[in-house]
Amino acid sequence: MTTIMDKSEATKHVVSQRIRKKLTWREIADEIGKPLAWTIAALHGQHPMPEADARGVGTLLDLDESVIESLRTQPYRGTFDNPIPSDPTIYRFYEALTVYGPAIKEMIHEEFGDGIMSAINFTLTVDRRPDPEGDRVVVTFDGKFLDYRF
Amino acid sequence: MTTIMDKSEATKHVVSQRIRKKLTWREIADEIGKPLAWTIAALHGQHPMPEADARGVGTLLDLDESVIESLRTQPYRGTFDNPIPSDPTIYRFYEALTVYGPAIKEMIHEEFGDGIMSAINFTLTVDRRPDPEGDRVVVTFDGKFLDYRF
Amino acid sequence: MTTIMDKSEATKHVVSQRIRKKLTWREIADEIGKPLAWTIAALHGQHPMPEADARGVGTLLDLDESVIESLRTQPYRGTFDNPIPSDPTIYRFYEALTVYGPAIKEMIHEEFGDGIMSAINFTLTVDRRPDPEGDRVVVTFDGKFLDYRF
Amino acid sequence: MTTIMDKSEATKHVVSQRIRKKLTWREIADEIGKPLAWTIAALHGQHPMPEADARGVGTLLDLDESVIESLRTQPYRGTFDNPIPSDPTIYRFYEALTVYGPAIKEMIHEEFGDGIMSAINFTLTVDRRPDPEGDRVVVTFDGKFLDYRF
Amino acid sequence: MTTIMDKSEATKHVVSQRIRKKLTWREIADEIGKPLAWTIAALHGQHPMPEADARGVGTLLDLDESVIESLRTQPYRGTFDNPIPSDPTIYRFYEALTVYGPAIKEMIHEEFGDGIMSAINFTLTVDRRPDPEGDRVVVTFDGKFLDYRF
Amino acid sequence: MTTIMDKSEATKHVVSQRIRKKLTWREIADEIGKPLAWTIAALHGQHPMPEADARGVGTLLDLDESVIESLRTQPYRGTFDNPIPSDPTIYRFYEALTVYGPAIKEMIHEEFGDGIMSAINFTLTVDRRPDPEGDRVVVTFDGKFLDYRF
Amino acid sequence: MTTIMDKSEATKHVVSQRIRKKLTWREIADEIGKPLAWTIAALHGQHPMPEADARGVGTLLDLDESVIESLRTQPYRGTFDNPIPSDPTIYRFYEALTVYGPAIKEMIHEEFGDGIMSAINFTLTVDRRPDPEGDRVVVTFDGKFLDYRF
Amino acid sequence: MTTIMDKSEATKHVVSQRIRKKLTWREIADEIGKPLAWTIAALHGQHPMPEADARGVGTLLDLDESVIESLRTQPYRGTFDNPIPSDPTIYRFYEALTVYGPAIKEMIHEEFGDGIMSAINFTLTVDRRPDPEGDRVVVTFDGKFLDYRF
Amino acid sequence: MTTIMDKSEATKHVVSQRIRKKLTWREIADEIGKPLAWTIAALHGQHPMPEADARGVGTLLDLDESVIESLRTQPYRGTFDNPIPSDPTIYRFYEALTVYGPAIKEMIHEEFGDGIMSAINFTLTVDRRPDPEGDRVVVTFDGKFLDYRF
Amino acid sequence: MTTIMDKSEATKHVVSQRIRKKLTWREIADEIGKPLAWTIAALHGQHPMPEADARGVGTLLDLDESVIESLRTQPYRGTFDNPIPSDPTIYRFYEALTVYGPAIKEMIHEEFGDGIMSAINFTLTVDRRPDPEGDRVVVTFDGKFLDYRF
Repeated sequence: MTTIMDKSEATKHVVSQRIRKKLTWREIADEIGKPLAWTIAALHGQHPMPEADARGVGTLLDLDESVIESLRTQPYRGTFDNPIPSDPTIYRFYEALTVYGPAIKEMIHEEFGDGIMSAINFTLTVDRRPDPEGDRVVVTFDGKFLDYRF
Repeated sequence: MTTIMDKSEATKHVVSQRIRKKLTWREIADEIGKPLAWTIAALHGQHPMPEADARGVGTLLDLDESVIESLRTQPYRGTFDNPIPSDPTIYRFYEALTVYGPAIKEMIHEEFGDGIMSAINFTLTVDRRPDPEGDRVVVTFDGKFLDYRF
Repeated sequence: MTTIMDKSEATKHVVSQRIRKKLTWREIADEIGKPLAWTIAALHGQHPMPEADARGVGTLLDLDESVIESLRTQPYRGTFDNPIPSDPTIYRFYEALTVYGPAIKEMIHEEFGDGIMSAINFTLTVDRRPDPEGDRVVVTFDGKFLDYRF
Repeated sequence: MTTIMDKSEATKHVVSQRIRKKLTWREIADEIGKPLAWTIAALHGQHPMPEADARGVGTLLDLDESVIESLRTQPYRGTFDNPIPSDPTIYRFYEALTVYGPAIKEMIHEEFGDGIMSAINFTLTVDRRPDPEGDRVVVTFDGKFLDYRF
Repeated sequence: MTTIMDKSEATKHVVSQRIRKKLTWREIADEIGKPLAWTIAALHGQHPMPEADARGVGTLLDLDESVIESLRTQPYRGTFDNPIPSDPTIYRFYEALTVYGPAIKEMIHEEFGDGIMSAINFTLTVDRRPDPEGDRVVVTFDGKFLDYRF
Repeated sequence: MTTIMDKSEATKHVVSQRIRKKLTWREIADEIGKPLAWTIAALHGQHPMPEADARGVGTLLDLDESVIESLRTQPYRGTFDNPIPSDPTIYRFYEALTVYGPAIKEMIHEEFGDGIMSAINFTLTVDRRPDPEGDRVVVTFDGKFLDYRF
Repeated sequence: MTTIMDKSEATKHVVSQRIRKKLTWREIADEIGKPLAWTIAALHGQHPMPEADARGVGTLLDLDESVIESLRTQPYRGTFDNPIPSDPTIYRFYEALTVYGPAIKEMIHEEFGDGIMSAINFTLTVDRRPDPEGDRVVVTFDGKFLDYRF
Repeated sequence: MTTIMDKSEATKHVVSQRIRKKLTWREIADEIGKPLAWTIAALHGQHPMPEADARGVGTLLDLDESVIESLRTQPYRGTFDNPIPSDPTIYRFYEALTVYGPAIKEMIHEEFGDGIMSAINFTLTVDRRPDPEGDRVVVTFDGKFLDYRF
Repeated sequence: MTTIMDKSEATKHVVSQRIRKKLTWREIADEIGKPLAWTIAALHGQHPMPEADARGVGTLLDLDESVIESLRTQPYRGTFDNPIPSDPTIYRFYEALTVYGPAIKEMIHEEFGDGIMSAINFTLTVDRRPDPEGDRVVVTFDGKFLDYRF
Repeated sequence: MTTIMDKSEATKHVVSQRIRKKLTWREIADEIGKPLAWTIAALHGQHPMPEADARGVGTLLDLDESVIESLRTQPYRGTFDNPIPSDPTIYRFYEALTVYGPAIKEMIHEEFGDGIMSAINFTLTVDRRPDPEGDRVVVTFDGKFLDYRF
């Protein structure tokens, strides 16, 4: 009697096959017709995948059935080993929050009132903006405003 | 012989006078002709303010000379008391990083190669996007791409 | 030039005057016509108080104008000095989360699908339920369900 | 000579078989005639299961004898890897405690005197309350009041 | 308008006056007719003191009214600055828990079943037991057994 | 060439066989004629077991020679994964220390002078004290007093 | 279906073969014509290796294909198990930062203005400087200056 | 009877007067004929200052005698509030250590054998190296090699 | 009504007067006829001082009566702000423990059996041992052996 | 292709064989003619062993070649799982540092000036000193003095 594969293990399989098949994340996302960030997050164990999507990815990447089964399950979310992430590419966003956190908070309150940007009803994109001094990474967080209501 | 006022103390004066004068952060930023997020961050002790800007804010908010002097100094940056911020409005961004961190990292590497988004050559905006199901908070992180070069 | 009183300082004034005036939190909440939990939380610096409410409390408790001004400001939320609260009355709820957290998560997912209970669009009540073996504390968390939507 | 299976391992078996058998937690709880939250908690290693219950679940889910043996043992309780839980569905309850902890404490003391809500003589339910603006998650913590007695 | 003195401040006054008056904790406890451990804990801000007791201590120690007022208030309990106490006299008890914690747990479960010793309905004594090889400190923790009931 | 079994592994074997043989810890302790708490602690890897005791337990529980060998080795003591234990049965003792730590310290100093209760020359018992309002758990820490001597 | 070897595992293979082949890191770096520090860092899982380099190292060290495949993948960077490194050779640099951090910061700001030394567009060398009182380790950090630009 | 001023307080005075006098750290270091990094570190409370140096700085900056007295005392070294520094200018060095720590360690061992670079018999410089793609910050750590000798 | 001065405050007074009077710790210890390490530790708030000693030091250093009163009180021991000390002179001892901890433990067990070196019945000396390659610091920890006895 | 055995694994082999061969650490140290503390530390993975020593120990203890190979490699030093060690035999030294740390620091500075005791050019012995009141453990730390030189 085997248990369902851990999502961290399933992620390793996805990542390995993606590299070996020389596929981009974009190609995988396009295959299943889902947004890019959602697709990568789901394949890193952060969202449960609908069966059709899991099967689509499985076919494209030649994944075992046990991986597909794992991708469909409900996750415990969160990817940080430590409260402060060590990888520089991720850390820069943490740093930006420590420097601009109060500014973001003030701008949200000034524009919307007392409340938050939802991280649940939420999407995310990463884009390239050409710039003669060096192209820029543009990351957009887009979440529904929720006001405090008691 | 007095020392220059701590920036955290200067922030309290700015925040207090802004509320009492019933001014928005936008009005303050417009007064000195600087971007909104930069202005709020600088007035929360995260950037040194050029003398003209500090004076402009000082006049608008009736700040003492000691506050203006403090705003001009070079900061030690960082606003978190704890590695994980407790305020819900700020926490949602931290949570988004824990869930989407690897997705952001993968998208940057796929689009740009091995490197990071600069948090130094960097701007930030917060916008409202109307939506019939509830307006949305759109936060844009915009930083220069830096590739690993040894 | 004085700054607006810290909310932690304002809380001390509210708490002190409530004890000296021998008023219950219920009487304070009734005076301003607000829910009990919201009132106590707001008076502990966790919600900004509308001017009328702050004035109402101020009159009832004989608070200085500086306290009333503080109660009206937007807070940085969060009341824990340490990630794990030491006070036994609060700790029991933390313990219940460590023991029943996965059960709560599973029940939410089974009943509602993938998502969360909002802690923003959220109310809370504490009630007494008589019981011959000893009365019971009944704490109800009531928040809007938010489903993950990308 | 084999040792009794770790409860975390047993949980994986239960969770895997539940998904494969397409059974809800409710159906499992009904099968053994136990409250829903207790059943899920016990099957996540937080309560020892009486033999009849463990066998009932074992039959329903086709569990190996080694899993059933594990479910019956006395646990070391607690499910958090870190003091602050990262999963958003669970975190919202932690956040609610950080914001409303003092309010809960004050309401308990005002209604019952100096003491605590027991987390041992304690039950928990999760319900759906229909609401035109979006249905609500209603989580009820119900524990015996214990007063400080020296 | 002054706030009620912090309990940590009140403790300093009690401790200072006790030393200056050359009184033992035992004499203070006897004066108010309360158990020794309870008295010391209450005077270290861990229990609210009934008015009569606070006045009794106040008269004995010549405390200001502001100290007496503070002793009567409901505390946030907990005296550790860090999770692991540094003072050797207190640390030895923490060490005993790290070494004998599972033994205590097993003995409670074997004798009483699944449950805990209450730390609320609880008393504590410290005694000297003469011993030719050196007298012994005997600390007795005495709490009501509470069984897990859902 | 195999290494001596880790004590944590040996503990699992002991615990598993005790349950399967339906033996109490008391019966095991009686078999080897050692105090109950010492026996459980030693079998949880906190004390090295003399060969005769390890053999006695091994015979009673049908343990492999490799387990017996492990029980005899000198341990690295300490059983907490985290500074604050999560299991409620153990936590209540930690909580009692956070609330009564200074009281215990003061009582020791008042009765014995400056020093500590030894956690090395130390015994521990757990007893049941019948009580019409619910039986009580009585845990006694008994350690030699050691005075500070430089 | 196997997954790509973890980089930590690949590092063990590289380190093991280097020792067995009695090769210096310098010889490995020279073989592939890359800087020494970059080569060691890459072979410790901190940089993705171009295929030619990975193959060159693989041939020199007789590495399995699975190791070479691993060396080529994009890493999650960071090598510290704990925020403060315990190894004395590495700790001394951490200590130097705690003592000279503000001095470094001030010298950068005085010479370059408000900004940072890039750790991305960055190289590193370690040299020996003969000295009659004992040779010296000279470690040079060389990164592009990035000024704060909003 | 006053105590000697804390070094953190003395640092504030030095920093404040330096800004008001519009002096560079270089000018201060030149005045007393000491290396730049040593001077800044000493004036940030990390080294005791010889009397002549303290007086020289005191005269240049118009410092009170109490500041000069403080500068001369032996420090407790270390400037980090948290194990991981939040200021970006300092953090980049911490990041470089997490990425290149093992490389530095290996290069030291390969060149010198088993040992460390001293952080006590140690100097530090920060230089600007012009570069058409953007000038570079060159930080040199220079410490005596100490080999492990038992 | 004043409280007894905190020991940390008393330490500042002692340290300040010692420097101003140009007295060595040795001279202070000799004046009161106590061991050097004990004297310094007691004057840093780690031991209560007998009245005669406190008065002797008070006279020698011209201390206020409030400082002398503080020196006599029973301390909460422990001088570390963080678990890992940042000061290099103290850190080296912590490092030696992390490297040689198991060796010390094994040597104690081999020579004495299962037990510990007491840190209560304990003395400490620091000596200089001349050495042509550089004089050596010799720190001797001398504590009574305590064997585990249950 | 196998990797070199982890030093923690090699330590387990050494420790296991020492017990089975009934050899003391002293006998092992004498066999190879090295100091006792160095030998134990090296065999616990804290020093690289010269080939002759590793072979000598290997012959004496009947170790596999893979263990001998591991003993010879350069270590990452440090043996603590947590910043504060839980084992009582090791903890007492940590405690002694928290209590006497400032005294040690002051004595070093008074005798030698500003600097540290080296933990690299460093030896350690553990001795028994007979005492009628109970024999004493005498642990001597002996390290070269290094003065701060910039």
